[in-house]
Amino acid sequence: MRVGVFGTGIVGRTVGTRLVQLGHDVAMGSRSAANETAREWASNQGGRATTGTFANAAAHGELLVNATAGAASVAVLRSAGADKLAGKVLVDAANPLDFSAGMPPTLTVANTDSLAESIQREFPALRVVKALNTVNASVMVDPGRLPGPHNMFMAGNDDAAKATTAGLLREFGWPANSVIDLGDLSAARGMEMYVVLWVRLMITSGTADFNVKLVRP
Amino acid sequence: MRVGVFGTGIVGRTVGTRLVQLGHDVAMGSRSAANETAREWASNQGGRATTGTFANAAAHGELLVNATAGAASVAVLRSAGADKLAGKVLVDAANPLDFSAGMPPTLTVANTDSLAESIQREFPALRVVKALNTVNASVMVDPGRLPGPHNMFMAGNDDAAKATTAGLLREFGWPANSVIDLGDLSAARGMEMYVVLWVRLMITSGTADFNVKLVRP
Repeated sequence: MRVGVFGTGIVGRTVGTRLVQLGHDVAMGSRSAANETAREWASNQGGRATTGTFANAAAHGELLVNATAGAASVAVLRSAGADKLAGKVLVDAANPLDFSAGMPPTLTVANTDSLAESIQREFPALRVVKALNTVNASVMVDPGRLPGPHNMFMAGNDDAAKATTAGLLREFGWPANSVIDLGDLSAARGMEMYVVLWVRLMITSGTADFNVKLVRP
Repeated sequence: MRVGVFGTGIVGRTVGTRLVQLGHDVAMGSRSAANETAREWASNQGGRATTGTFANAAAHGELLVNATAGAASVAVLRSAGADKLAGKVLVDAANPLDFSAGMPPTLTVANTDSLAESIQREFPALRVVKALNTVNASVMVDPGRLPGPHNMFMAGNDDAAKATTAGLLREFGWPANSVIDLGDLSAARGMEMYVVLWVRLMITSGTADFNVKLVRP
């Protein structure tokens, strides 16, 4: 599948590398087509990935992954162009973290709205699925690095887009029964707000390499 | 130990009953000393519990439990009286849920503040510990009803108050290693914001009888 990955940070590079390993045709998008981080990443993908602007990555992908900083995501997608986003599935892995007051961060949007909903409102023809944002990059693409079962959450308004996302998660190694569909995209509020707890757990644990498992009777 | 429980809802009654079973001397506080729910609850405690106003419960307790609706908690504690709260440990089990727009709820305070911090600011001499708020009443007092290990979070500025709370949690059945101390009381933000995800999980699961387990390598 042709995938456009927005963002050259640890999430974009890790997800991009995993997608290439899985045989997908990946374009990594960034603000500048000359982005050195993106080029260095692509040079290690055995010729199976390209780089370019956000618009290039959007045009390339049948499936898109938002791995940009949440506070910048809407502007990034605007620069990609609504016409290139229309009809496509966007897996929104970003969190609207605000580090302007240092650690721990707050959220730029929360409670009565979410980043994922902000994106969906701005691009109604984009099929936004919130997923991946509740774990670090390593766990996203290799859930088996943690012992035993644990869970991935997903939310979105488009069932077919969620099925596509669930397929991607299975490729990453998430068993079908580990993925919890929380319903429509307003559930992204809880998924993003959970990240404030996640950051505290990271600080307390001294590692970002963890996740939660739902325990039921 | 003498415990004052604020609130006559399912959390107040369930925690109160468990405390009586454990041999504690419980006073349940509510807005009116004639509260019928409180009186009916007390009548089933074999003479080992009393009821009264919030001020009565505050005066009675060495340890206090806030099981009121979060949106009302600060007003409740004001009516109890700052002088009766001074120096005591308050286990804040409440969540600042706003159901005015129906389900799912939003929070009355979030992101840059929390209910627990609001209480602490208003009553500086009260030793506030956030705990219990991330599970339903049944799980609070009987974690063994869920299979295998799972976790309870705790936050507060006073280490001795957290040690007292950890002792209470152990009495309730929480193994020492299941309780995760997230640090100072600002961690209550994440614990309260998580509840928005919890509500979605409840809706999806069709039950409130669940919790999460931290999974680490």
